[in-house]
Amino acid sequence: MAVIDLNSDLGEGYGAWTMGDDAAMLALVTSANVACGFHAGDPAGILRTLRAAAARGVAVGAHIAYPDRVGFGRRDMDVGSAELVADVIYQIGALQGLARAAGTRVGYVKPHGALYNRIATDPRQGRDVIAGIRAVDPGLVLMALAGSPLIALARSEGLAVVAEAFADRAYTPTGGLVSRREAGAVMHDVQRIVQRVLQLVRDGTLEAIDGSTIRLDAQSICVHGDSPGAVAMATALREALEANGVALRSFLVPAGVPA
Amino acid sequence: MAVIDLNSDLGEGYGAWTMGDDAAMLALVTSANVACGFHAGDPAGILRTLRAAAARGVAVGAHIAYPDRVGFGRRDMDVGSAELVADVIYQIGALQGLARAAGTRVGYVKPHGALYNRIATDPRQGRDVIAGIRAVDPGLVLMALAGSPLIALARSEGLAVVAEAFADRAYTPTGGLVSRREAGAVMHDVQRIVQRVLQLVRDGTLEAIDGSTIRLDAQSICVHGDSPGAVAMATALREALEANGVALRSFLVPAGVPA
Amino acid sequence: MAVIDLNSDLGEGYGAWTMGDDAAMLALVTSANVACGFHAGDPAGILRTLRAAAARGVAVGAHIAYPDRVGFGRRDMDVGSAELVADVIYQIGALQGLARAAGTRVGYVKPHGALYNRIATDPRQGRDVIAGIRAVDPGLVLMALAGSPLIALARSEGLAVVAEAFADRAYTPTGGLVSRREAGAVMHDVQRIVQRVLQLVRDGTLEAIDGSTIRLDAQSICVHGDSPGAVAMATALREALEANGVALRSFLVPAGVPA
Amino acid sequence: MAVIDLNSDLGEGYGAWTMGDDAAMLALVTSANVACGFHAGDPAGILRTLRAAAARGVAVGAHIAYPDRVGFGRRDMDVGSAELVADVIYQIGALQGLARAAGTRVGYVKPHGALYNRIATDPRQGRDVIAGIRAVDPGLVLMALAGSPLIALARSEGLAVVAEAFADRAYTPTGGLVSRREAGAVMHDVQRIVQRVLQLVRDGTLEAIDGSTIRLDAQSICVHGDSPGAVAMATALREALEANGVALRSFLVPAGVPA
Repeated sequence: MAVIDLNSDLGEGYGAWTMGDDAAMLALVTSANVACGFHAGDPAGILRTLRAAAARGVAVGAHIAYPDRVGFGRRDMDVGSAELVADVIYQIGALQGLARAAGTRVGYVKPHGALYNRIATDPRQGRDVIAGIRAVDPGLVLMALAGSPLIALARSEGLAVVAEAFADRAYTPTGGLVSRREAGAVMHDVQRIVQRVLQLVRDGTLEAIDGSTIRLDAQSICVHGDSPGAVAMATALREALEANGVALRSFLVPAGVPA
Repeated sequence: MAVIDLNSDLGEGYGAWTMGDDAAMLALVTSANVACGFHAGDPAGILRTLRAAAARGVAVGAHIAYPDRVGFGRRDMDVGSAELVADVIYQIGALQGLARAAGTRVGYVKPHGALYNRIATDPRQGRDVIAGIRAVDPGLVLMALAGSPLIALARSEGLAVVAEAFADRAYTPTGGLVSRREAGAVMHDVQRIVQRVLQLVRDGTLEAIDGSTIRLDAQSICVHGDSPGAVAMATALREALEANGVALRSFLVPAGVPA
Repeated sequence: MAVIDLNSDLGEGYGAWTMGDDAAMLALVTSANVACGFHAGDPAGILRTLRAAAARGVAVGAHIAYPDRVGFGRRDMDVGSAELVADVIYQIGALQGLARAAGTRVGYVKPHGALYNRIATDPRQGRDVIAGIRAVDPGLVLMALAGSPLIALARSEGLAVVAEAFADRAYTPTGGLVSRREAGAVMHDVQRIVQRVLQLVRDGTLEAIDGSTIRLDAQSICVHGDSPGAVAMATALREALEANGVALRSFLVPAGVPA
Repeated sequence: MAVIDLNSDLGEGYGAWTMGDDAAMLALVTSANVACGFHAGDPAGILRTLRAAAARGVAVGAHIAYPDRVGFGRRDMDVGSAELVADVIYQIGALQGLARAAGTRVGYVKPHGALYNRIATDPRQGRDVIAGIRAVDPGLVLMALAGSPLIALARSEGLAVVAEAFADRAYTPTGGLVSRREAGAVMHDVQRIVQRVLQLVRDGTLEAIDGSTIRLDAQSICVHGDSPGAVAMATALREALEANGVALRSFLVPAGVPA
């Protein structure tokens, strides 16, 4: 039977500001990428999200980012190695503390936004992130862009990796994400998105933006949670996957180590 | 043989800004209160301090604070319980992650500045800090102002407590600190400070600002490290204590649990 | 003919986070209290709000606050005088620069949240705020809680003051606001709120929470804008005032000096 | 008679943290680039520096930066246009407010660190900075790297520009700065630095790192102020310039408009 993980970015409020509907998404996904305070998330809000994730039995990942709250971690930054390694450790450690208080644990790490995009192909910053993760806990799993050079790099340094694909993003013929600045980069047709994900889960293939078929090895699908439409999309996706006999399950076994 | 712990606030730089001489102080003290990023300390700088503490075998405490970097955590803030509990957990967790990367561990928690002063007598915020510490690790020791109501409160909630006295601060006849706004609150005469600490360690007594003798039960002495004069003072204090047969030793046994 | 000003807190998003519906509120109010970046507001978002206010001809005030973004400026802080004076100047200056770029100008200053409540009765911090305002531009008007001691203090130091009342808040028999922690502090019945405001504008009186009638001298009414319900309330209030022959007008003449 | 301006980066403390010796440098330079709070500078500290600059009659420039305090504005950031324009306006406005309170005014703008380096050659961000400056006050002068494309760009958009050279930095044969990562990028020999500046002021030429002679049109010389050695260097430079009949004078006339 086919098995897939659904992940979403959560805990992204900040103080009086909210973002997305964490409660609704936690009923749908199997993995929660929880903000660590650098691009979003204040301690009290993060703790609330972790408690809700624990109550739902949803796996928890550290959604680490550049220190850029006003830019929501979406702006590329030229952070030096000593700073980046320590920033990674600090964020994971903070989330581990809050997870412990919430009765759960951090099982994986997913870089966010500009950091995610940068390390997909930049080996210097990629190595810094890997070093930071390993310094805290070498048993943590790295979630990385399916098809990116980061995957081999992380594995060569001893880290377990889970590859993810994006349900609503268009892909280039070489397996990269079409830039958000280009037309058609983000899809909105729920049925088409559902069909793409089903094909990806069953066959490991996807139709690229030019109509060609590409191969993509992904164990997790990212669904966005920051709009009412996103909740509806995730609901449709989950229902379609289950109706088609695809099991939704975290890539971490209950004890929190890679399956 | 008399035994005492010497502690100092360290890791209080921020990015390009430095504060104090951590290397010099780590050669003198037995416990390092390391900033956690809320009043001071950036991840890379904290990690450097933790590595130096590990190399020296100095015990590490989490120097938690209000979220007030520009005010250096010295301004009283009316932080609600949900926020304060989570802020405490976040800071301890972050420092635990960095400590693990540095090959050491966090053994105790010392609140900083305005938070320290506030919870010495405010049971609501005191309980929040205690709850935060216990949620991360009930084995952590709380360092608190000798003679303050916080000590009994923390013990009644199951937390181990170490009481500290201040080498260079004047005391009121009832055992409180003379406010920094009053004349004579901070002493600068090294010989007088050394004599006070020797008396405190041997007899458990101290001369208050009005000349009366007060009893103070303290297992640790705080020495400041943010000026060259402070390093000289700490050096003189350490030498005098050793010359008088007082052993300098962390209140944590090597494994990091209360002695 | 009776004349009143309607003011609302706007520009309170931060980066990717939004708050309230500035566009809707700017169609209803005559004065916009615009965040200055300390409790809320990033420069680009503030600039968008100022441009919209300029397009609508809505007067602009600087909504200054304690430096506490994660607490949304709602937590009392013991800020020293040198810091508070300079924080006030910095925020007003920043907003003046953005207002100039948006083709409008800052005509008044309204302290926010905990700072607002604190200086209503704390003359030390009140004098600091007044000193900061005067140092930037002595022609700025201070918006203060109707009936509070701050009003006489500010006038005695040469500042023009506009007193404001809150449309949806209950009042004590002595003219203070009922604390939000008490039942009945915030009203939700639109018709009742509208009737209260009409009585206040016509007669200068209000029914206190104990049923007694109090006298309140207010030239501006604050309406909240951070929920869809708030927009409906402001709409109802504006329509009722106009239907009852009350003119809605900023207390600043078009050139931006006190009327 | 030859005339030159000496400028230095000042007001770069932050809360409890200090940097450099502003008082010493203000006795030596004719222009102060004052931090605006984004890379360094808290309002109270900035105000102190501005008052000292006003007392010395030193001209004031806004030292604007990327919003990156922990990185001291030294890390390249991919900031979008709407954000960058508004960030520039906000910082200049805030400094103008504080300057007014200090009895002086902002006469020019000098971008800091990574922003300075980026816009020297990046026309997109360069145009954003120019647009921000013009939106606040088109009479402000832009201080830019001598020989950089930014100079022509700013002039073509109607901004007055002052070109600056660095006293202690090595130059490439094409007039660029040798990267700090390369050997010999920063000079430390006071006599050699003094001779270079004298030649530059008299002849408009400089010896590049390969021994060739380059032409450099500069109206201001930047001297660093963040170490005791820097104060000694600035003192030697000032004395040598005066001894050789070079007048030290701000490029702004007393009223603060371009000379």
